[in-house]
Amino acid sequence: MIIIMKPNASDEAIQRVAKLIQSKGLQVHLSKGDEVTIVGVVGDKSKLRGSNIEISDGVDKIVQVTESYKLVNKKFHPEDSVIPVKNTVIGPDTLTVMAGPCAIESHDQLLSCAEAVKKAGATILRGGAFKPRTSPYSFQGLEEEGLQYMEEAGRITGLATICEVTSLRALSMAVKYVDMLQIGARNMQNFELLKEVGRSGLPVMLKRGLAATVDEWLNAAEYIISEGNPNIVLCERGIRTYETATRNTLDLSAVPVIRAKSHLPIIVDPSHATGVRAYVEPLSKAAVAAGADGLMIEVHPCPSCALSDGPQSLTFEQFHQLMTDLKPYAALEGRRIDL
Amino acid sequence: MIIIMKPNASDEAIQRVAKLIQSKGLQVHLSKGDEVTIVGVVGDKSKLRGSNIEISDGVDKIVQVTESYKLVNKKFHPEDSVIPVKNTVIGPDTLTVMAGPCAIESHDQLLSCAEAVKKAGATILRGGAFKPRTSPYSFQGLEEEGLQYMEEAGRITGLATICEVTSLRALSMAVKYVDMLQIGARNMQNFELLKEVGRSGLPVMLKRGLAATVDEWLNAAEYIISEGNPNIVLCERGIRTYETATRNTLDLSAVPVIRAKSHLPIIVDPSHATGVRAYVEPLSKAAVAAGADGLMIEVHPCPSCALSDGPQSLTFEQFHQLMTDLKPYAALEGRRIDL
Amino acid sequence: MIIIMKPNASDEAIQRVAKLIQSKGLQVHLSKGDEVTIVGVVGDKSKLRGSNIEISDGVDKIVQVTESYKLVNKKFHPEDSVIPVKNTVIGPDTLTVMAGPCAIESHDQLLSCAEAVKKAGATILRGGAFKPRTSPYSFQGLEEEGLQYMEEAGRITGLATICEVTSLRALSMAVKYVDMLQIGARNMQNFELLKEVGRSGLPVMLKRGLAATVDEWLNAAEYIISEGNPNIVLCERGIRTYETATRNTLDLSAVPVIRAKSHLPIIVDPSHATGVRAYVEPLSKAAVAAGADGLMIEVHPCPSCALSDGPQSLTFEQFHQLMTDLKPYAALEGRRIDL
Amino acid sequence: MIIIMKPNASDEAIQRVAKLIQSKGLQVHLSKGDEVTIVGVVGDKSKLRGSNIEISDGVDKIVQVTESYKLVNKKFHPEDSVIPVKNTVIGPDTLTVMAGPCAIESHDQLLSCAEAVKKAGATILRGGAFKPRTSPYSFQGLEEEGLQYMEEAGRITGLATICEVTSLRALSMAVKYVDMLQIGARNMQNFELLKEVGRSGLPVMLKRGLAATVDEWLNAAEYIISEGNPNIVLCERGIRTYETATRNTLDLSAVPVIRAKSHLPIIVDPSHATGVRAYVEPLSKAAVAAGADGLMIEVHPCPSCALSDGPQSLTFEQFHQLMTDLKPYAALEGRRIDL
Repeated sequence: MIIIMKPNASDEAIQRVAKLIQSKGLQVHLSKGDEVTIVGVVGDKSKLRGSNIEISDGVDKIVQVTESYKLVNKKFHPEDSVIPVKNTVIGPDTLTVMAGPCAIESHDQLLSCAEAVKKAGATILRGGAFKPRTSPYSFQGLEEEGLQYMEEAGRITGLATICEVTSLRALSMAVKYVDMLQIGARNMQNFELLKEVGRSGLPVMLKRGLAATVDEWLNAAEYIISEGNPNIVLCERGIRTYETATRNTLDLSAVPVIRAKSHLPIIVDPSHATGVRAYVEPLSKAAVAAGADGLMIEVHPCPSCALSDGPQSLTFEQFHQLMTDLKPYAALEGRRIDL
Repeated sequence: MIIIMKPNASDEAIQRVAKLIQSKGLQVHLSKGDEVTIVGVVGDKSKLRGSNIEISDGVDKIVQVTESYKLVNKKFHPEDSVIPVKNTVIGPDTLTVMAGPCAIESHDQLLSCAEAVKKAGATILRGGAFKPRTSPYSFQGLEEEGLQYMEEAGRITGLATICEVTSLRALSMAVKYVDMLQIGARNMQNFELLKEVGRSGLPVMLKRGLAATVDEWLNAAEYIISEGNPNIVLCERGIRTYETATRNTLDLSAVPVIRAKSHLPIIVDPSHATGVRAYVEPLSKAAVAAGADGLMIEVHPCPSCALSDGPQSLTFEQFHQLMTDLKPYAALEGRRIDL
Repeated sequence: MIIIMKPNASDEAIQRVAKLIQSKGLQVHLSKGDEVTIVGVVGDKSKLRGSNIEISDGVDKIVQVTESYKLVNKKFHPEDSVIPVKNTVIGPDTLTVMAGPCAIESHDQLLSCAEAVKKAGATILRGGAFKPRTSPYSFQGLEEEGLQYMEEAGRITGLATICEVTSLRALSMAVKYVDMLQIGARNMQNFELLKEVGRSGLPVMLKRGLAATVDEWLNAAEYIISEGNPNIVLCERGIRTYETATRNTLDLSAVPVIRAKSHLPIIVDPSHATGVRAYVEPLSKAAVAAGADGLMIEVHPCPSCALSDGPQSLTFEQFHQLMTDLKPYAALEGRRIDL
Repeated sequence: MIIIMKPNASDEAIQRVAKLIQSKGLQVHLSKGDEVTIVGVVGDKSKLRGSNIEISDGVDKIVQVTESYKLVNKKFHPEDSVIPVKNTVIGPDTLTVMAGPCAIESHDQLLSCAEAVKKAGATILRGGAFKPRTSPYSFQGLEEEGLQYMEEAGRITGLATICEVTSLRALSMAVKYVDMLQIGARNMQNFELLKEVGRSGLPVMLKRGLAATVDEWLNAAEYIISEGNPNIVLCERGIRTYETATRNTLDLSAVPVIRAKSHLPIIVDPSHATGVRAYVEPLSKAAVAAGADGLMIEVHPCPSCALSDGPQSLTFEQFHQLMTDLKPYAALEGRRIDL
């Protein structure tokens, strides 16, 4: 931690800050410049909690030198993690494709999706049983009934399954039926939920919040891992910007950024990011080329009949074509696309 | 709802869209322009759910004509709401000041705050017992112990009390001790929690999400009101932008926008929005002048000792001065500042 | 300037950085922490130009300690500037109201506006002769003819006049007719134009760029002042965010931020910021309460006939009412509203 | 154009709007819904300029149905354009790599760059002679001397050359020496400059503004093409968002969006977008996979000696490796990487 003093800070003010730090058992390095004095702090800065140095007399600002997340930080865990999910893995040697409908609508809809995406090469089935919707008057999901269909679809096809949980109640149901949990963008900082999935024993995919920085996202993952669950996968799904040509702005630079800062795998969701079916294929290829460990793709037997997010869903045929198109890109990146 | 066809949409495509709409019991108005045809839809558009017209052949885009929120919409409830809280009210004739510490740290800290803010003219005591923190290693709040201090402070001073609830567990505790609930920015779209505070019977202050549009914010309020709770107050607390000179960007234009679109009162929180103590006073005055129904201000007996957000907290003396400065602005707006 | 080394930076790497800095005639302060080493740099950092220390082996990042703008920086010029314009001034004791049409459309339109705003208490007449328009097919302004009307309106009413210049060509014409120049948001970083207005001898109002940080804005002002022109006024006119309820998001916290960082006056333009006439009055009052040195308001004899930005223009009567409403707010801030 | 009336608009108000439109020679289609009435307008809407219907009594809002850009619009020119530059072309069958230093610093620096990038397979040499810099105290470029080196480098190596022009003065010099002009992000809406490059006769690369929407960007291109110059290439270079992990946020979804809306080629600049050398390679591959027609890459003989943007520049060796890595991606997209 570095404390930058104001240009006109008095010697007394500087000494007062230095003594405050030393009183907490930390060391101080003073650096007097032509314009300003800088106070370097050495030691465990958590001891300074509550000292609020930034409003001491003469202090201009504080600069944090080290990240607040530790267990998900690549600095302290340089090898890339490999996350096991049922009989597959997510990590640097695989390109994991999670596919399925935005919302589970019926037994037949989900089962037909499961068979189609399995056949095309996906290894994980997605499907929403609890839908967080902007308006209370929109379709909210089949809940436990949907989870039962997921369990059945996973059993019949051998696919692993993933479902978003939006509350502790949803979580307590989901753990009985699915292989992997998803925390959606709106709940990225629902810390109670993060802690509870951290205790669930299941692998978790953590979507980036709508306006979350990479730093906040990794701190949210730290909430999960600090409860004892290291099986975390991150998912970039677009951030909110001023641009309206796409629903969100897919931040593909987050892929190399995450790979530089963390050992956790990263998945990209071009369906939700763009909201437009025609952009899913070019951005899926781009995500793979950028180094993503996988993709989450919406597929629907009849997109024009979907209760949720039809405009961005692929038909079975389009998804099959996408998987075919992706194979040479996965190969260039040294990744296996199915197991 | 209006459907805009592509310039090259065939007559068959236009007829197919028209028939789809009519088959759901709605009426169609066709408007053929030089370049494009427009299809107006008349009737209850919820009947079109799942028809996904936007991906029908020949359709360019859909324009929504009416808002999805109804009960909080000023169009259907033109008089401004007045929200009772304990022995005070929030509404167009009052300027409600909620003040207190960011986090409740101890019995003495909270009680001394309560007395100081009461004396200066605040009518509601704020204080966090459950703190949503970016890092799992930061102070997380005193929880039920803190709520007990709130109850005591309210009893002794006569102030109404408000506390943020971050989960169903926190909510079930808070309803026993405080007069008003707060939903924080991170939980603005925690829909389960919104529904539950909608059933709590207590008035609710709903903070705007970090990157929420006004439309999403009013839809979140609709979740609460649609559960039977009309006692909702909105709170603007800064949005996330590219600018880093302040912690968030206080969007004061949201005050007249909300007053034009909804009958719910709106409070402004300049402390969290800016994160800088020196900006609290000018922006408090500005909020009142813009038409806000109240302010939420952080106060601490010793900001430099605060466990959370000290840099933006006012001392008792500064808060007293602020209240004095605000009085003529409240008077210009025709608002009583205390009851 | 502070250089933060990577956790695993070798002693050789640290010494190499230190020697590089010393070789340029600067001093080094090393601060070895438990995790990382920090290198403080003392002296004129412009000597390090081109040394690109941030990509030296072992370097994690660079933190700038001092601002790059100097002449507009309050640290080196603590008294607020007072900017003379014709027979009026802009500064801490006045509330300057600039008013007039978005675009000059005709002799009669401008002259009638000038008389109306003069009568209501404005001291500066605004009016666009060169209009920067998103589409090449929109009305682009009357150019020199418009400037001649400005000169006449100023002569007849005694008002000072301000006009936006969008190019060197426009500038060379405008200096012959008006009392103050305006640089619009789109040209905030048109550095050639900034330098030239810096040499023009006329006072300049510099609008904030659509997505400019406060730091970039003050650096743009530094371009003007470093050419010898200290008569600069800043103008906040809304920034681009994800919110669409208003055209831009008026950043009123920029008012206290600018007043803390610079000695230059700051004006607020609520008309362009919101794009909605009904929001101009509440946000004008808010700007004054936040500490603004003035306002820029669009007025039109017949807003529904305006060639540009009619929806945000006030009628003469509305403007007269606004000026009346503003007076007590100006008085509370200790500012004279006309001279 | 569609006019949406307010729910309480009277029949008189609706008739008044309808008559206003008809009085300009346009046709009206009324569509009365349960809540609101919609007025469709058929005909040349430029005739409505200045009628400001949006502030007529009873009008809620206006929805534009057609884009304001015409000549760059794919709807009216469905085949992708191929832009000739010296002896190469930019278009759907090629992957054009523009490479070179951020700023031209010396004869030797530029010539060695030119030879290195030519050898590695680039076809266009980039290099800045006029540098738009945030601070007036930063290096501003070699100007005409730099252009002379560009001309020489192009002659010796056979490479085409591109240089940013920041003013009419720079433009008048550049046309004498280089093969292609660049408009930088800060000048995307410098309309005078756009018009002048539109008359220059040289091909132009138009970078996206820092906070420009796709729509504004295409309108800026319309300024160039409407002056008679169809040889325009767009360049995505990152947009401004709240995220600070990269300098800007590279919006790769703009690639398929532009390809859907315009016939102009699109180039991606990952160097400026991220500001970090390590992210250039993954995002270059991603850009190609997303469908980009080319890349602009910064290369420097000694990045740690660069006067501008060293941290994002590749060494000759790194650039050679990048070009080798890109070849299979270009092949998958059916593009030739050099001619």
